[in-house]
Parts: sequence; structure tokens; C-alpha cells
Amino acid sequence: MLSSLMHSGLGRLGAALCLVAIAAPTLAQDDPLPSWTAGTTKQSIVSFVQSVTEESGDRFVPSADRLAVFDHDGTLWIEQPIYVQLAFALDRVRALAPQHPEWQTTEPFASILQGDVAAALSGGEQAVAQIVAATHAGLTSEQFSGSVRDWLKTARHPEKGRPYTELVYQPMLELLVYLRANGFKTYIVSGGGTDFMRVFSEEVYGIPPEQVVGSSIKGKFAIIHGKPVVVKQAEIEFIDDGPGKPVGILSRIGRTPIAAFGNSDGDLQMLEFTCLPPGPDFCAVLRHTDAKREWTYDRDSRIGRLDKGLDAAATYGWTVIDMAEDWKTVFAD
Amino acid sequence: MLSSLMHSGLGRLGAALCLVAIAAPTLAQDDPLPSWTAGTTKQSIVSFVQSVTEESGDRFVPSADRLAVFDHDGTLWIEQPIYVQLAFALDRVRALAPQHPEWQTTEPFASILQGDVAAALSGGEQAVAQIVAATHAGLTSEQFSGSVRDWLKTARHPEKGRPYTELVYQPMLELLVYLRANGFKTYIVSGGGTDFMRVFSEEVYGIPPEQVVGSSIKGKFAIIHGKPVVVKQAEIEFIDDGPGKPVGILSRIGRTPIAAFGNSDGDLQMLEFTCLPPGPDFCAVLRHTDAKREWTYDRDSRIGRLDKGLDAAATYGWTVIDMAEDWKTVFAD
Repeated sequence: MLSSLMHSGLGRLGAALCLVAIAAPTLAQDDPLPSWTAGTTKQSIVSFVQSVTEESGDRFVPSADRLAVFDHDGTLWIEQPIYVQLAFALDRVRALAPQHPEWQTTEPFASILQGDVAAALSGGEQAVAQIVAATHAGLTSEQFSGSVRDWLKTARHPEKGRPYTELVYQPMLELLVYLRANGFKTYIVSGGGTDFMRVFSEEVYGIPPEQVVGSSIKGKFAIIHGKPVVVKQAEIEFIDDGPGKPVGILSRIGRTPIAAFGNSDGDLQMLEFTCLPPGPDFCAVLRHTDAKREWTYDRDSRIGRLDKGLDAAATYGWTVIDMAEDWKTVFAD
Repeated sequence: MLSSLMHSGLGRLGAALCLVAIAAPTLAQDDPLPSWTAGTTKQSIVSFVQSVTEESGDRFVPSADRLAVFDHDGTLWIEQPIYVQLAFALDRVRALAPQHPEWQTTEPFASILQGDVAAALSGGEQAVAQIVAATHAGLTSEQFSGSVRDWLKTARHPEKGRPYTELVYQPMLELLVYLRANGFKTYIVSGGGTDFMRVFSEEVYGIPPEQVVGSSIKGKFAIIHGKPVVVKQAEIEFIDDGPGKPVGILSRIGRTPIAAFGNSDGDLQMLEFTCLPPGPDFCAVLRHTDAKREWTYDRDSRIGRLDKGLDAAATYGWTVIDMAEDWKTVFAD
């Protein structure tokens, strides 16, 4: 009994945190956000974190309530010229095409196979649903994760030429670490697929699978050859976008965040949900202003449109992160 | 910066865990499961926990993968003579009846108001859906939680005469604490309503809201009088029972448990999902064998039927917890 407790996770965690507690005063003198330029944006983040962690202050928030939610596409990683998960699905269509000769003459597949993505997507939601069904449904959770993992190893961004998991924003990685070091629990709350993001969320962002809330398709339990599996169905379960985000947060987490970060109108309701009630709270929208290092887009963009969200930021005094101005580095080298 | 980190949750958590680490050798000499009688059941639990926490052993499981899932009704608290949440819903119908004169002549409400619950429930799923819609829908999440909280304060079990939150199983409370002390993350995975359980899960079981997976009805985001809310709709979103449990686990948690505890056939698929693949793992079914202190029921019970689950336990060698034999105490005094 004694030895089992001494060898337990708690014992080791305690020991590890003892070291952290001892090392903290030294580490604290380093800048936790080195990729952020000195300025009002960085200062607003640091001031907020200091205020909610200062136990004697009037804006102190207990650690259990320090919940920070992050949109994914365009907030933590690149979303241009098309959402990464769509790039995955299109590649899957191409890979599966030999098994589906009928796709050569059926939309949206025919257009995809002819390289005309715009035409393929002109079918709107129904086209997307068909693509998702064809590339996701029928797979077990494990098979699906494996197909994402394999794809990420070889897929490259069409313009940057780098693996997608390298096209994450270095300043946001630092922000995630900084918040967690200050007792925050960090969540991804994204319109993207939960099971797609979970394949890399822990490795890339330090966010474990249970802290990833996204869109999902229905699953069905089965025992196949003696092995229990959940098979993905060709039916949407939940769209975690726009007004779906606060619903997803309450349903999957059951707490209200005190910090929210987004970059598009799909994040508006999550930001409202976080910051309209009395604080302490912090809301920020990332504005893509950097044509040189990334992209410039906001009110008129088809992907990641930031229009109402920009107005709301002005109305409510939310922080606007200006990529060109506020970030020394965009992507890690 | 220095002072903010020193005052941060991490600093305090580190300090607290230093104390725990120092105190552990003393505490470890105490029996962590004092309400369990010495015997094979208790030994099987302790042996499992020791084996997965013994870092040098061949059954070691890293703390991040030590996920334990617990059914709720009949596994952590009482479920006879009717599910507690149903008692809540029936009381809500009675309380709301003055505002609904039409209920006097409409089923299932008329039967409820006449005290004939069996007749009310004879309408099956549709009757339950109507009761849920009438008592849950239209409320914001906050209003619903408040109504549960108020009810729990005054409601008493019809036979035990005690508040429901006192009718939780003391041995299971000890087991939850024991597992967490050994680096497990404990989850409730229940057919009951997520938002119903979250009202008391942290206080009663030490399980925070984000670790409660249950059934749910759809929510809709709205801003009412400037306040962002999620309003419950009269539509089922997800039934976390039977084959729904593995689906809920993968969808909401995204990991496979290594330990599962249930008491009815509604838990069968969760147990299969946890223990059919190669271990290390631990599955147990609680058998209600204690007419004196609680109830005796299994294969023929309308509530909490344990039939296929009992067969599966025999087939696969899962632990059967015999309430009368294995528990010194059922409810805390």
C-alpha cells in the first residue's frame, strides 16, 4: 500500500510541482510571451492574467473557474486558402476515388476530381455533408484518427509548403502555456471536427482530447470481430459554430469561460457568452492583417469572415489582436 | 510578474501538493476503503490499482490514461423506487400544475396529478418525453440548475426520509477518492440528465461538471435582456444509455477508460467498451442484494435491471460487487 501510493501519479505529480514551485521565482523573470510585441495588446493580456490570479485583489478568480476557450481555424492555426479539414477531406476523396467509379460523374465528387473545388462547394451545405459522409462515415473512431494521422504526415500547405501542424501561431502557443502556468484550463471550441482536432491537439497545443469541443457526426456502438468500436454515421450530430459554440461549451464543459479568443463571426456568440455578463473576463479577436507573413482578410472574406465580430469588439471594448502589429513571429521556425 | 506567479494557482497548488507528498507515507498506512469488507472484491480493486500505478510493473498505465467511468443511478446513489430525476420531474409537474389547468385532463399529467405514476408512465417513451419537455424545456441552463438545487434542498426519499444527496453509497465515495489519489480521473457516465447531475456532482462526488457525461436535450443560444443564455428546447439531443455510453465517452472525453463501474444492463456496452480489448483494465457491476439496508433486485427489475450484465460479468470475469457481502456501510450516517 505504502509503496503503491509512493509510486502513484499523485506522488510523482506532487514531487514535480515541488520543483516547479521552487523554480517559479526564477522563471517568472522571463517574458512568457516573447513573440508578442510590447504594446497595449500584450499588456491587456498580462494585466488580465495578473488581475485574476492576484489573490488579494478584487478581480481574483479561483483556479477552478479560470476557463479559457480558443477557436481553432484562423485563431490557433492557418485557415487560408481553405480550412485544413476540408483539404483533408478533398485529399480523401481523391484517394478513395478508385473505389468509387461513380464519383467521376456525380457531384460534388466529379468537380473535386477535376480539381475545381469552388464548383464542388457551390452545392453549399449539402455538398459539404456529402463530402463529410463519403470521407468520414463508415470508419471506426480509430480508423478515422489513423487516416488523419497518416494524412498530416505527408500533406503540405499549398502555398507555404510546410506540414499543417507547423502552421500554428507561435504567439498563441505561448499564450496557451502562459494561461496554463497561471492556473487556467485551456479548451479548443471550434467549428471543426472534434475527432479531427483531437489527433494532434495534445501534441501541438498541449490540449488533451477531453478539452477539445468541436462539431461531430453521430456514432454507433458495435462489436466487430470481438472488438468494441464506435462507427461514424453519415449524419451530423452537432455543429459547434456561431450560436452552437455557447451551447457546446455548456453541454460539454458545463462552465462559463472567463477568457475567449476567436477570429471570425463564427466566434461572436462565444465571445458574447464569455464577456457580456459582468467580469472579470477577457475577449479578443485576432485580425488577419499580415499579407506578408500570412494573409489579410476580414469583413469580406469567404473564409473566416470577421465583420460583426469587429463591430462587437469596438462596441464592447474587446481586444483586437493585430497580427502584423502585435506579433513578432507568426509561425515557429 | 514575480508576485503574480507566486500568487498563482500553480504556486498554491504546488505548495498544497508538497504537503500531500510529505503526508502521503503516513496516510498510506490507513485503509483507503474502510467501508468495504475484507475479501476478494476489495482485494481485486486494490490489486488493480496497485498494478497500474506500479511504475516498474508490466501493467503500469501512465496517469493521463487512468480514466475511470461510473454509472450514476444505482451505482453511486439510490435508484429505487423510481429514478431520482423522475421524482424531480413529477414534483415539478405538481408544482407547475396551477399554471396548466389543461393538465388536469391531459395524459400523462392527469395521472401524475392523481398520484398514479404507473399509469402516467404507461405511455412509455412518449410520456417521459412529454414530462421532460414540460419540466425542463423553456428554462435557461441557470434557471434549470436553480430549480434542481431548490428541489434537492427540500425533497426527501419516500421510504428513507432523507435528502437524496445523502443516499449516495459511502463505499463508492471512498472508491472515487482512492482512485483519484492514485492518479485516476473519475467521470460519471450516466443515462441521467447531464445538467441535473452537474448541480451536485462536484459537492457530493468531487466530480467537476466537465467530468459528467449524461443525456441531454438540445439547447439554443439567445441574448435576453442583454444577458447571453442557453435555453433548453423540447427535443432530445443525446441518450447516454446502453450503446449510447461508449458513444458518449468517445464523443465527450475522447479516451477509452481503463476502469468502469455499473449496475444495470444499461451499463453493459460501457463495460464491454472498457474491458473487452486487452487490458490492463477493471470492470465491476454492483449487485443490489441488500433488502435490509437498501433493495434486492437484478434480473427482473423494471428499474436497474441487471440480466445480460450479470451474464457478461460471469463470461468475462468482471468483478461482481455484492452489496450485502462487500459493504460494511451502505449510506453515510
